[in-house]
Amino acid sequence: MLKGGYMGKILRVNLTNQTYTEESTTEELARNFIGGAGFGIRFLFDEVPAGTDALGPNNKLIFAPGPLTGTSAPCASRMAVVAKSPLTGAVGMCTTGGYFPAELKFAGYDALIIEGKAERPLYLWINDGKVSFRRADKLWGTNTFDCQQLIKDELGDQNIRIACIGPAGELQSKIASIINERRAAGRKGLGAVMGAKNLKAIAVRGHKTVPVASENDYKQARSRMLKTMKESPVLYPAFANTGTPMVVEATWGLGIFPTRNWSATGEWDPVDKLGIKANDSRKIGKEHCYNCPVACSQLKLAREGIYTGSLSVPEFETIYAFGGQTGVGNLDSIIAADRLCDEMGMDSISTGVAIGFAMELYEKGIITKDDTDGVELNFGNHEAMFKLVSKIGYRQGFGALLADGVKDAAAKIGKNAEKYAMHVKGLELPGYDVRGAKAHGLNYATSYTGADHNRGYAFQEIFGIPEPETVDRFAYEGKGRLTKWNQDIRTATCDCPTMCAFLLDMAFPANAALNCADMLSSLTGLNFTPAEIEKIGERVNNLARAFNVREGFTRKDDNLPERILTEPLKEGGSKGQYISRAELDKMLDEYYYERGWTAEGIPTKQKLLDLGLENAAEELEKMGA
Amino acid sequence: MLKGGYMGKILRVNLTNQTYTEESTTEELARNFIGGAGFGIRFLFDEVPAGTDALGPNNKLIFAPGPLTGTSAPCASRMAVVAKSPLTGAVGMCTTGGYFPAELKFAGYDALIIEGKAERPLYLWINDGKVSFRRADKLWGTNTFDCQQLIKDELGDQNIRIACIGPAGELQSKIASIINERRAAGRKGLGAVMGAKNLKAIAVRGHKTVPVASENDYKQARSRMLKTMKESPVLYPAFANTGTPMVVEATWGLGIFPTRNWSATGEWDPVDKLGIKANDSRKIGKEHCYNCPVACSQLKLAREGIYTGSLSVPEFETIYAFGGQTGVGNLDSIIAADRLCDEMGMDSISTGVAIGFAMELYEKGIITKDDTDGVELNFGNHEAMFKLVSKIGYRQGFGALLADGVKDAAAKIGKNAEKYAMHVKGLELPGYDVRGAKAHGLNYATSYTGADHNRGYAFQEIFGIPEPETVDRFAYEGKGRLTKWNQDIRTATCDCPTMCAFLLDMAFPANAALNCADMLSSLTGLNFTPAEIEKIGERVNNLARAFNVREGFTRKDDNLPERILTEPLKEGGSKGQYISRAELDKMLDEYYYERGWTAEGIPTKQKLLDLGLENAAEELEKMGA
Repeated sequence: MLKGGYMGKILRVNLTNQTYTEESTTEELARNFIGGAGFGIRFLFDEVPAGTDALGPNNKLIFAPGPLTGTSAPCASRMAVVAKSPLTGAVGMCTTGGYFPAELKFAGYDALIIEGKAERPLYLWINDGKVSFRRADKLWGTNTFDCQQLIKDELGDQNIRIACIGPAGELQSKIASIINERRAAGRKGLGAVMGAKNLKAIAVRGHKTVPVASENDYKQARSRMLKTMKESPVLYPAFANTGTPMVVEATWGLGIFPTRNWSATGEWDPVDKLGIKANDSRKIGKEHCYNCPVACSQLKLAREGIYTGSLSVPEFETIYAFGGQTGVGNLDSIIAADRLCDEMGMDSISTGVAIGFAMELYEKGIITKDDTDGVELNFGNHEAMFKLVSKIGYRQGFGALLADGVKDAAAKIGKNAEKYAMHVKGLELPGYDVRGAKAHGLNYATSYTGADHNRGYAFQEIFGIPEPETVDRFAYEGKGRLTKWNQDIRTATCDCPTMCAFLLDMAFPANAALNCADMLSSLTGLNFTPAEIEKIGERVNNLARAFNVREGFTRKDDNLPERILTEPLKEGGSKGQYISRAELDKMLDEYYYERGWTAEGIPTKQKLLDLGLENAAEELEKMGA
Repeated sequence: MLKGGYMGKILRVNLTNQTYTEESTTEELARNFIGGAGFGIRFLFDEVPAGTDALGPNNKLIFAPGPLTGTSAPCASRMAVVAKSPLTGAVGMCTTGGYFPAELKFAGYDALIIEGKAERPLYLWINDGKVSFRRADKLWGTNTFDCQQLIKDELGDQNIRIACIGPAGELQSKIASIINERRAAGRKGLGAVMGAKNLKAIAVRGHKTVPVASENDYKQARSRMLKTMKESPVLYPAFANTGTPMVVEATWGLGIFPTRNWSATGEWDPVDKLGIKANDSRKIGKEHCYNCPVACSQLKLAREGIYTGSLSVPEFETIYAFGGQTGVGNLDSIIAADRLCDEMGMDSISTGVAIGFAMELYEKGIITKDDTDGVELNFGNHEAMFKLVSKIGYRQGFGALLADGVKDAAAKIGKNAEKYAMHVKGLELPGYDVRGAKAHGLNYATSYTGADHNRGYAFQEIFGIPEPETVDRFAYEGKGRLTKWNQDIRTATCDCPTMCAFLLDMAFPANAALNCADMLSSLTGLNFTPAEIEKIGERVNNLARAFNVREGFTRKDDNLPERILTEPLKEGGSKGQYISRAELDKMLDEYYYERGWTAEGIPTKQKLLDLGLENAAEELEKMGA
């Protein structure tokens, strides 16, 4: 019997039959996987066999908050959303914050597993343990903000929290996201999985509270956590005031703010147009996630020309994707494009990268006006960029070609277009030009979700933080070890408990595992040591890797785009840098060694057994991996 | 001491000083003016002297629900919003439904009077009798839907109800509206009054209940009311299923659906493109106002081309304004334009009429591409229509010329443009071509708010209802008496108590005063007879007229556009009909006679004294009227 942190139940919903069952959250699961991404990946590995069609009824969509979610712990607002990704074919795992995740706990659940496929569009209504299946034929086609309001009005309760898809998810765009409030489980096409299941939305309302095992210990742990946060040199007031857009300056300073589909990184100074000052001039407020004292979300209002009145929360990655990547120096158009992405339920990174990719093809003559519906799709054309966003979301005209991401688009276009498609495993690259930050590169190459900054962010290279060791961002040596640590610690202390990853980057680089053990032990009554916490991170990463191996991924997929491997940066603070094939291989060798994997990147039986992943060991052995 | 229906307090807020006071709701006020429009117009007459700048600090903005509002009475969700109108210079009075009006009662108030002007943008937060003035600098520029959500988030309560302005109100467009939820106090530029006061929004939350004087009597009265509603031949299921768009068919059938700025009424059949079937094909749901069993609001989702995904509740008047008036047979563009109007806080009728007006000027060569920012502004150009809406809202380019309505635009354009400006007293004409419905014409000419179908709607002419008498819609005789009755009964039984006017039109034409007396007497404990109810309607109309007379309005302002007076309808069910100058004069003579006014349209001293309007009598006498 779990004493704290967990609600004790996992809700399993079958859309095909419109039935649901409740299962107990076991101590075994809690001890070994904590919650969040750990739970999600465990369910995914156990229940979604190799070769499952990601957009078919046998894929599963798992929503899993962690034990800290919905408690008084600061910055623990999040949940993991997990499925097999239609974009990558690998594990699809995102986390999202806001209020929905805590509400799911309040409704009584540590996780929600969605199975099957509804015959007609519907939405789930989870009301304090009562589950109903409600018709959503009429909601089909609504944008994510309207959808949330319409469901609140229909159910007559403005305090309901809703996660839903927009038109992009309905149309099964492989870059579709899931939106709750203004937050997104943005990447890897999880919105398409929901759309393929004919599930428009999940509405949740709950009145339970998350139990605490040892009130006094927990209070003290929480006080220590808040104190550490206050001591951070960047969290207050810098990060709380500017949010992620401050990374425009940081990456530009290092010469790694990617520009023009990564063809001109370092050659364009975006700071005056897209940096902190520009962002501040559009800032109208901040938004909190559940119980977050930082509130890094910066509400921005566009105030110029055709974009006037558009409101959004463009994070750094969105500014990169619609700004640097497309060569657009118009922040208002970026705000407007971001808003459109949220309304249509579409990943702003993948969308922006796809547009920048198309722009380069257009400039190179690989595609022409005949392909682009007559639009002059040059870099920097902010109106064309903005208009293309909704065409992608609705699969209209040229937009349809980009609606499943750059890998898919390149394959359809042919003519060597893949050379300009900036992705790993199908997932579009986030906004750090890894040629000047090698651990980022290795993380993009090896993350179990594809090119995902969030799974093993090498903050040491960006912010010069000397934890766990001082690193030279241009060096290859040691990046295997560092990347393993970054991936494991992030998984264990952020994606599972849950906790916002910004705390890891800015407040706890040195003692994340300690803080996490401290909080979790007092909250749950289970004794987690810092070493165990780190081991859980390793366990989850290995299980995710095992899933991918079972799907056929090998070393050859731990790759980087050709441009990264062959084109040195021409200007800026990382001038001359690139990652050669040989150097990537060296990093991979070190990484696999540190992970205890074979030279082919396969977890050894011994490693999996050490981590208690007997069934994974067995399955990989069975397939002869 | 009032026993039921009233919360007992009126909240007076001074924005200049950021102070507020509470006054008692007196029995005298309740007995003689009921509430809603009665309260609002009484305060307006008493407190806003002749010549007050409607956009200056001395104008007052009054929000007044009625005694029935917020009770269990069906369809009593509404409030009056009253100020001197910047568009007409006359009384500006609108009613709006939704949930804000009831919430204002729950917060403890029978009315809210806003005075003065804030130095910087702010919003009011009325929380169960506690009032605070909160900065809104950052909210300035947000659209009305975002604004509502941002305030809920800022105050941390999703159950707050908000009335607010959008960019149009901020820019003091004289056709700006006030939006609460998806509802509008749409016409007469009340949003500009709010904008001129630097008041972005009013947020309300309350937990009080409206007292009932005689529970048993009230329950019985309510049952009788619900029974009468059920017996209506049109309310269920027809009107509940189709809402106001069914009027497209009704008016087209009579040949009075105005087309192409009223130049082609009867010549275009809009039924297949804009009628019930077309509307049904976009319908995704219904919206309720507070405690309304009918829920006539029909949510429509645009599903074609560039308008895909736009969601709105286009009423008949909006379909007329963006459809017939502009010659646009594209319902999706109308839905999208309506949504934009709501987002920007702008009256859809005035906006559409202004666009149709501009289209006729363009077709006639009075304006050219040089004026229209290069746009071909022909009738039927739905893309041009749609784009112009946001330019009007933001006063951009050619839009700025139309942003204060057609009367203002015609004056600026000159060149006889006024001939094509379809307005009375500056208020744009609603969607009934009065050439084929003379009582509508007389009501447009005489309504105290300008060309306002809602102040004395002649349902007898449209639906053939024989109450209070069978009428010939083409006849002039008797229309003076009928219009007086329509105006008084509507004011007394709808705008004051409050009750939705659709009940009068569809359920209570014969016994509205009886039903109203029945409901009010049991609710309030004050004894209202049906005759007294009708007299209150007359009182409020006379007081409003006295306000207008004091502002300089006379018979010459009780006019109709030149086109109505000179151009017979060329086709359709009202072919050959128009209202000649002489016939309008005859109707006015009869109307003034029935009202007990002079031939100049001035209420006589005797009439005002008979109605207990001593101060009005005195003031008009003083000015020699």
